[in-house]
Amino acid sequence: MPSYHAPLADFQFLLRDWLKLDTHYQQSGYTDFDFELANEIIAQGAKFATDVIAPLNRPGDEAGCQLQDGKVTTPEGFAAAYQEYVANGWNTMLGPEEFDGQALPYTIAVPVHEMLNSANLSWRLTTMLTESTVLAMCKHASAELQQTYLKKLVSGEWTGTMNLTEPHAGTDLALLNTKAVPQDDGSYAITGNKIFITGGDHDWSENVIHMVLARLPDAPKGVKGISLFLVPKLLLDEQGNPATPNSLSVGSIEHKMGIKASPTCVMNYDGAKGFLVGEAHQGLACMFTMMNDARFQVGLQGLGAAEASYQGALNYARERVQSRAPQGIQQPDEKADAIIFQPDVARMLLTQKSLTEGCRALSLFYAKYMDKSHSNPNDAQAADVLQFLTPICKAFMTDMGLEVTSLGIQVFGGHGYIREWGMEQLMRDVRIAMLYEGTNGIQALDLIGRKLTRDGGKMLQSTYTAFAELVNDIQDAEQQSRAQALLDDFKASSAECLGMKAEDVAAAACDYLAFSAYSLIGVLWYSMADTAQRTDNKVLAESKRKTCAFYEARILPRRDAHRLAFRAGAESVLAVAGAEFDYL
Amino acid sequence: MPSYHAPLADFQFLLRDWLKLDTHYQQSGYTDFDFELANEIIAQGAKFATDVIAPLNRPGDEAGCQLQDGKVTTPEGFAAAYQEYVANGWNTMLGPEEFDGQALPYTIAVPVHEMLNSANLSWRLTTMLTESTVLAMCKHASAELQQTYLKKLVSGEWTGTMNLTEPHAGTDLALLNTKAVPQDDGSYAITGNKIFITGGDHDWSENVIHMVLARLPDAPKGVKGISLFLVPKLLLDEQGNPATPNSLSVGSIEHKMGIKASPTCVMNYDGAKGFLVGEAHQGLACMFTMMNDARFQVGLQGLGAAEASYQGALNYARERVQSRAPQGIQQPDEKADAIIFQPDVARMLLTQKSLTEGCRALSLFYAKYMDKSHSNPNDAQAADVLQFLTPICKAFMTDMGLEVTSLGIQVFGGHGYIREWGMEQLMRDVRIAMLYEGTNGIQALDLIGRKLTRDGGKMLQSTYTAFAELVNDIQDAEQQSRAQALLDDFKASSAECLGMKAEDVAAAACDYLAFSAYSLIGVLWYSMADTAQRTDNKVLAESKRKTCAFYEARILPRRDAHRLAFRAGAESVLAVAGAEFDYL
Repeated sequence: MPSYHAPLADFQFLLRDWLKLDTHYQQSGYTDFDFELANEIIAQGAKFATDVIAPLNRPGDEAGCQLQDGKVTTPEGFAAAYQEYVANGWNTMLGPEEFDGQALPYTIAVPVHEMLNSANLSWRLTTMLTESTVLAMCKHASAELQQTYLKKLVSGEWTGTMNLTEPHAGTDLALLNTKAVPQDDGSYAITGNKIFITGGDHDWSENVIHMVLARLPDAPKGVKGISLFLVPKLLLDEQGNPATPNSLSVGSIEHKMGIKASPTCVMNYDGAKGFLVGEAHQGLACMFTMMNDARFQVGLQGLGAAEASYQGALNYARERVQSRAPQGIQQPDEKADAIIFQPDVARMLLTQKSLTEGCRALSLFYAKYMDKSHSNPNDAQAADVLQFLTPICKAFMTDMGLEVTSLGIQVFGGHGYIREWGMEQLMRDVRIAMLYEGTNGIQALDLIGRKLTRDGGKMLQSTYTAFAELVNDIQDAEQQSRAQALLDDFKASSAECLGMKAEDVAAAACDYLAFSAYSLIGVLWYSMADTAQRTDNKVLAESKRKTCAFYEARILPRRDAHRLAFRAGAESVLAVAGAEFDYL
Repeated sequence: MPSYHAPLADFQFLLRDWLKLDTHYQQSGYTDFDFELANEIIAQGAKFATDVIAPLNRPGDEAGCQLQDGKVTTPEGFAAAYQEYVANGWNTMLGPEEFDGQALPYTIAVPVHEMLNSANLSWRLTTMLTESTVLAMCKHASAELQQTYLKKLVSGEWTGTMNLTEPHAGTDLALLNTKAVPQDDGSYAITGNKIFITGGDHDWSENVIHMVLARLPDAPKGVKGISLFLVPKLLLDEQGNPATPNSLSVGSIEHKMGIKASPTCVMNYDGAKGFLVGEAHQGLACMFTMMNDARFQVGLQGLGAAEASYQGALNYARERVQSRAPQGIQQPDEKADAIIFQPDVARMLLTQKSLTEGCRALSLFYAKYMDKSHSNPNDAQAADVLQFLTPICKAFMTDMGLEVTSLGIQVFGGHGYIREWGMEQLMRDVRIAMLYEGTNGIQALDLIGRKLTRDGGKMLQSTYTAFAELVNDIQDAEQQSRAQALLDDFKASSAECLGMKAEDVAAAACDYLAFSAYSLIGVLWYSMADTAQRTDNKVLAESKRKTCAFYEARILPRRDAHRLAFRAGAESVLAVAGAEFDYL
């Protein structure tokens, strides 16, 4: 597989020219930052992703993780790469300054995270969950817990995990059984089994800090009786150093379709000592702080895998010589033409490119609103936009990741199916992203059932306003009018869902999410293509203009299919939940 | 994973009631056959697939194939199952009577093949290629070669392979390098390297008969200089028994995404003794006899995997209890409702079901025309219909296989990603089917560039007529009128493609194929649902009626997106074959 090449020119264009980073930093209070600094950090991140992490990706898939004598070993080189990551301060990017974090804008961290995902999805996962742990602790943990644990989580000296799922309780956390019994010293004894725990154990760092959902003895039933606990792998001594093994163990490492180099563990808690994070019975709210961050980050996994697959397919299509192009001979000196000249191959590459770059624009637009919201927690519009876009980013960018990585295989023909080329690994790895942190179906229900309808459509209106600002800035009148029509059409069709019955909403959810994503990314394409015409990079300007035209001609029509489908209501769906399935 | 359950009730309905098998056999000269006999054979095939082959599927994926000392070993139980298959005569189903085949109608063999694919895709592959070898030899080989080899290939005592691909020559066979040098004894010395050879070696049978494409010394350049050779693994003695090892070897077993229990070999021919099949330089035509058969069979792989995934998802969705259904509590005695009551899960199951059953109808409709064509080679309409439908069956049924197996994973949530459940294996296994025997892009070009346009649209007209007969038989006037409108719309939109430029055709190909498939399967759904109302099986009648309504409401809208896309022409595609990709 050709080595990963960081898409720095696209980041530069999107941040400097499209999002106008310098103005944005001034307006949002990130006055220590400017585009030059952002660009420098991103370039360093690119170097780390391409030189250190990417080369571990293929061998990691073959080696997988091992559990021996209760200890997990990750593939060769993974731990050393992590230690380099920590030593160079990458783990601190988003951490709060109070705990030695850099508190960088998301518009800097998100490109770095995308590149880590492109380079090695398995490797990235553990660091992602540590960041989520930091977030949850900053928001919910007591000052004492923060003082004891946060610096080492921010630095990456220790890593964090999320423990939600149990064998019988995934989407429905109300069913979870893990118990927390109060102890005399103010701690809790945690007992239960958790599955699918990313980074549950590993050989990267001395301690692992587990965030575990469990029930107190007096807990109400259902989700209102869930509390969050911090459960360290090693209990600390009085100096705060890891000392005593806690009563927890890795039951096994899951056998998975992909992300084989990431240790996904079954965790057994057997009266393990834990500490309450936040209020009793408020665990779900605490967990959602982690989860919402993680959801966007999972979307970035889809984007990262898509970019890597697109690059692999593009390189192969340029080099693979096969048949003559139907529009006429392209490479008369060769025995045949490179397959990039085959219209159907170009169609696949442009589908990859237009979806991937569209999603990158979405992710950076999201990051800009993260910056706004972070610097001004009272910015209601920013909060609304983030709430509305989070399920779209998670679900659409991972669905897109699957489509794009599958196309990458297809461009390679039979070679795409062969492990050594690396294309099939990308598809296997990214498939998980449609499932975890809430399946994409759950994301769609969140979008249509909560985000769209809550407060009479206020989040929709805020999102509309945010995108309308982009449309306003489009200089080409024709393009502006198309973008405006697309945005208005999106809003009008969204409004159709506002009065729907609960079952119609549920039946429409996935198609509504896809419809929304294709629409909004369409607006981003018109905006990007227009901005690109006013930059010095003529190749990029042409590329954006033409890719926008492709997106409009070949991808946007999918909206119609999704809209017709979500308008159809629940009747044809609910008609068949029973005996009609039984005639086999 | 729940065990595979053969969809016998659907086969019975489709064959007896929908295709009216008794009348069909009388009209097409299969006078020794009737529905009862067909049903009995299919039931026996179901028993073999479920009891013998299906249990080997998961362990086979984990074990894979081994190459040691030049010999390939398949997973435990695979060889014994094959020997049972041969002993029970299953390999002879389609073989000609002259060589001890049963010459069964395709309407009997196709359901058996679908079930074998559902049970174990890896296992099925080698037998499929033997059938293709038999076909090519019956049509093209000399009487002497036929006498020497055919009986043992028909019985399955020996197996067959197709050797087309070389590392640098896949889609474009004009580039292939393997050489065939005439020898004094009338044989040829074959030298070259072939890749992706399914069943290139194994431990199932004594001999392997390779069909190898190679060039004679005086061959014209390009595809007009390719000849087909029969190259046995073991050369025969004068009694026709395998005796002397030929100069060929297995270089390695490919490392693949899936179908790991199928030995996909790199084959090295080092002056191996081969025999010309058919005329010199006519190898491509001979190979296409194998290939066309194999293309439909590969479509059946998509169908088989889809059915298995649907069954797994359906069972899981009934048993997995998680959250309450939005339309109201469904199982008050449980802590939550089974997820089948969630509209979004029901949507996924119905997408699986409507696509799978629609493709099954297509496959049996195709089989019916195979019967007609086989019993009357002068039936031009039947030949046209088969030609038109072959690329659709291959490409659409395998694209569909990927979508349905991915949905199967999604219904399982995180568990779908865990190997032990078997759902992810189905997706990995079926992914190959979009690639081999001509990528799906090549199928689409074949459909729009050859089948649709050749003879001024004659194949389209024949296909239209064949489907119009189904529409005529619909009794419900409202449904009949919808089916007719759909069919007419398909024809009118197809006609739009007739005058297109070559590059527009190529750019439109994949979307035109998908448009055609959704349209034609829509017609099949109206027809099936209508017929079902006049059977005794009320559950099936309701199921077909409601699934048809779902297909109409939720799947048919995809046509619009594909039509808009294929109408867009090549401009937006071809605009970007060059430097615009370079700005990274």
